[in-house]
Amino acid sequence: MTCYADLAPSSRRIMTPGPVEVDPRVLRALSYPILGQFDPEFTALMNETMEMLRLLFRTGNKWAYPVDGTSRSGIEAVLTSLIEPGDRILIPIYGRFGHLLQEIAERVGGEVTTIEKPWGTVFDPEEVIAAIDRVKPELVIMVHGETSTGRIQPLEAIGRECRRRDILFVVDAVATIGGVPVETDEWCMDAVIGGTQKCLSVPSGMAPVTYNSRAEKKVLARKRIERGLRIPQVSPASPDFMLSEAEQRSYIRSNYLDLSQLQDYWSPSRLNHHTEMTSMLYGLREGLRIMLQEGLEARFQRHRLHERALIAGLQAMGASLYGDPSCKLPVVTCVNIPDGIDGESVRGMLLEKFGIEIASSFGLLKGRIWRIGTMGYSCRRDNILQLLGALEAVLLRHGVCLPAGEAVQAALHVYDEEASPQAAV
Amino acid sequence: MTCYADLAPSSRRIMTPGPVEVDPRVLRALSYPILGQFDPEFTALMNETMEMLRLLFRTGNKWAYPVDGTSRSGIEAVLTSLIEPGDRILIPIYGRFGHLLQEIAERVGGEVTTIEKPWGTVFDPEEVIAAIDRVKPELVIMVHGETSTGRIQPLEAIGRECRRRDILFVVDAVATIGGVPVETDEWCMDAVIGGTQKCLSVPSGMAPVTYNSRAEKKVLARKRIERGLRIPQVSPASPDFMLSEAEQRSYIRSNYLDLSQLQDYWSPSRLNHHTEMTSMLYGLREGLRIMLQEGLEARFQRHRLHERALIAGLQAMGASLYGDPSCKLPVVTCVNIPDGIDGESVRGMLLEKFGIEIASSFGLLKGRIWRIGTMGYSCRRDNILQLLGALEAVLLRHGVCLPAGEAVQAALHVYDEEASPQAAV
Repeated sequence: MTCYADLAPSSRRIMTPGPVEVDPRVLRALSYPILGQFDPEFTALMNETMEMLRLLFRTGNKWAYPVDGTSRSGIEAVLTSLIEPGDRILIPIYGRFGHLLQEIAERVGGEVTTIEKPWGTVFDPEEVIAAIDRVKPELVIMVHGETSTGRIQPLEAIGRECRRRDILFVVDAVATIGGVPVETDEWCMDAVIGGTQKCLSVPSGMAPVTYNSRAEKKVLARKRIERGLRIPQVSPASPDFMLSEAEQRSYIRSNYLDLSQLQDYWSPSRLNHHTEMTSMLYGLREGLRIMLQEGLEARFQRHRLHERALIAGLQAMGASLYGDPSCKLPVVTCVNIPDGIDGESVRGMLLEKFGIEIASSFGLLKGRIWRIGTMGYSCRRDNILQLLGALEAVLLRHGVCLPAGEAVQAALHVYDEEASPQAAV
Repeated sequence: MTCYADLAPSSRRIMTPGPVEVDPRVLRALSYPILGQFDPEFTALMNETMEMLRLLFRTGNKWAYPVDGTSRSGIEAVLTSLIEPGDRILIPIYGRFGHLLQEIAERVGGEVTTIEKPWGTVFDPEEVIAAIDRVKPELVIMVHGETSTGRIQPLEAIGRECRRRDILFVVDAVATIGGVPVETDEWCMDAVIGGTQKCLSVPSGMAPVTYNSRAEKKVLARKRIERGLRIPQVSPASPDFMLSEAEQRSYIRSNYLDLSQLQDYWSPSRLNHHTEMTSMLYGLREGLRIMLQEGLEARFQRHRLHERALIAGLQAMGASLYGDPSCKLPVVTCVNIPDGIDGESVRGMLLEKFGIEIASSFGLLKGRIWRIGTMGYSCRRDNILQLLGALEAVLLRHGVCLPAGEAVQAALHVYDEEASPQAAV
């Protein structure tokens, strides 16, 4: 039988838009012995996680808990639970992950209308509001931070207008949560999906979601109680097996991603559903604890600082940034690949020789831009400085003409300014 | 702001039918720094995991990989991908998890017919085959090991007859995989779902699945390429947005649990789908590695040995076992709660005072039986002996009349016999 080697992953600086490096305290939490899923000690940890998620999402919502799957599972859970087949859905798209929302919304039966902006830009809220009045949708679904293009969409005006029209507003904040402000209540967002493997620096595997009573009302209207749990008798002919007409018409077509069942599992009744991912929950709780220790505002400022240093370094190197700067996503910086340079060769050399990973992009941007993430635990001074030095060396090796040494100095200057604003002037 | 305490889970012996204690080597693997999902070092680990899963499932199938979610996500992925709305489905049910299969199959649009056996028994294969000839289903879906009742269903004859009739045979082996023999190819099972948090002793969070080319054919016939990935142009009016009639008719209604997309992600093309759960994949790989080091056959024998010791101890204590002994699931032992005893009080005292967790059951068995799991890393001599001693003490404390001291001695006798068959006689 083949012998498989001991696990021994190489050291990596991960500067992609996710997954990013995991805080060592989160890694330690993952390694703790597990508790049973209904052990009171474990359910207390679940409840604490819900409390901390409410602080992360800046919401008073009752429901804030992780869906047990990667970020995409959280998006599908919200969409499959909130979209009734035939519902009119408006999805404004300005990058790859907007198409994913369309993809999922259509699969679960929504009648989707999209509007699109060229990649590299975002919508003026008025454009979205005009489309809302044209389409008259039941739901508006949008991406907050689009990692494929490195853009961030202002949401507050759209949320307010959706609320005035009694439309549900659903937001994919996978890339932004914990890195830039996400104001669930203030921006009138009815359901928000976050990610763990980006600005929270917890491994991929859970998708924190929150939704308010407006969204819950629709979820509960489509609720169907699981068989195995609603049968008091053995007999299959029992009337408990009969479904009401409403249940037959519109009930939620997933069991695993059914928010009505998930919230029962996360409620004091702890109605059995899946077996909670114990170790991942440990990791998420620790990631949230670290975030609250740092403080949300301080965390956002840290992300802004390292973004400034990175941009200063890239510009000193002569690199050109992709996209409209007025809507740049602070935690992802997109760089135009210089003409005649093989972007994948640069990425490969960075990874192999320097142990640093950056990303390419998708679709029409594939081979045209690099994407550099500055998220969560990866968003650190040593990472920025090492990346700039390594990228310079790799570009020189690829024959790019650039002012050697300038990039790291420019970034150091930003850090000096931050440490002592007077002295640096 | 509330201050959340350091994570410090209490020591537990987890003797439920899952989740069970995690092998310390798996916990260590979870704590290793992560790699990017497309890092060649990581994709090599993914490929090794597929190889080891084929050995676990005893199959030559091309496809054997984890779905990123708890066991239930694997079941739903297989069912939503293989069941076309309107398909006739036969589900023989002999416990709670059979009802779950029915629940999911109906939600995804199957026309489900069930046959049922009283809880505590299983089907004679002939009964299932007769139902197959009556119902003429496209799929037969069954549970292999039913943890709610502690029974195991013989599958080989059913699989053979399904194959002869060109019916797809899908098996939920969540509770049995890695603890008792599961012969995917020999028993003619077209798709099998395993679990991690039971006999593999990896935390809940991934669902290993395997399926053969017969199942894949149906999956591919229902494949729809994801938007964001199939659009070469920005324009939404591009013909690439049009769907063929076949696609419109029957495509898979989940994106996250779509096996056609998952297999592209696990293939050499690595087509982007979700962000693989890096840490969980480390854990699964390590759990599989440990399993192969022990050897499947030795592992099955270990589970049998500790089951024998547990049963000897329980019987010496005067406990009565629930269900038909001829179809007892080796890794779950169900005990009738003595008349007049509050089962939850006994469980609570075991957990609080002794740090040992056992389970209750569901539906009509709630409050009537305890379920003791002997799975994976939890299936150890020290656990069996400590549980028997603790259970005896707790039952005495609850006023049960029993021959004190006998249970542990009886179990020790089984272990002595095993160590030295001659001496013990």
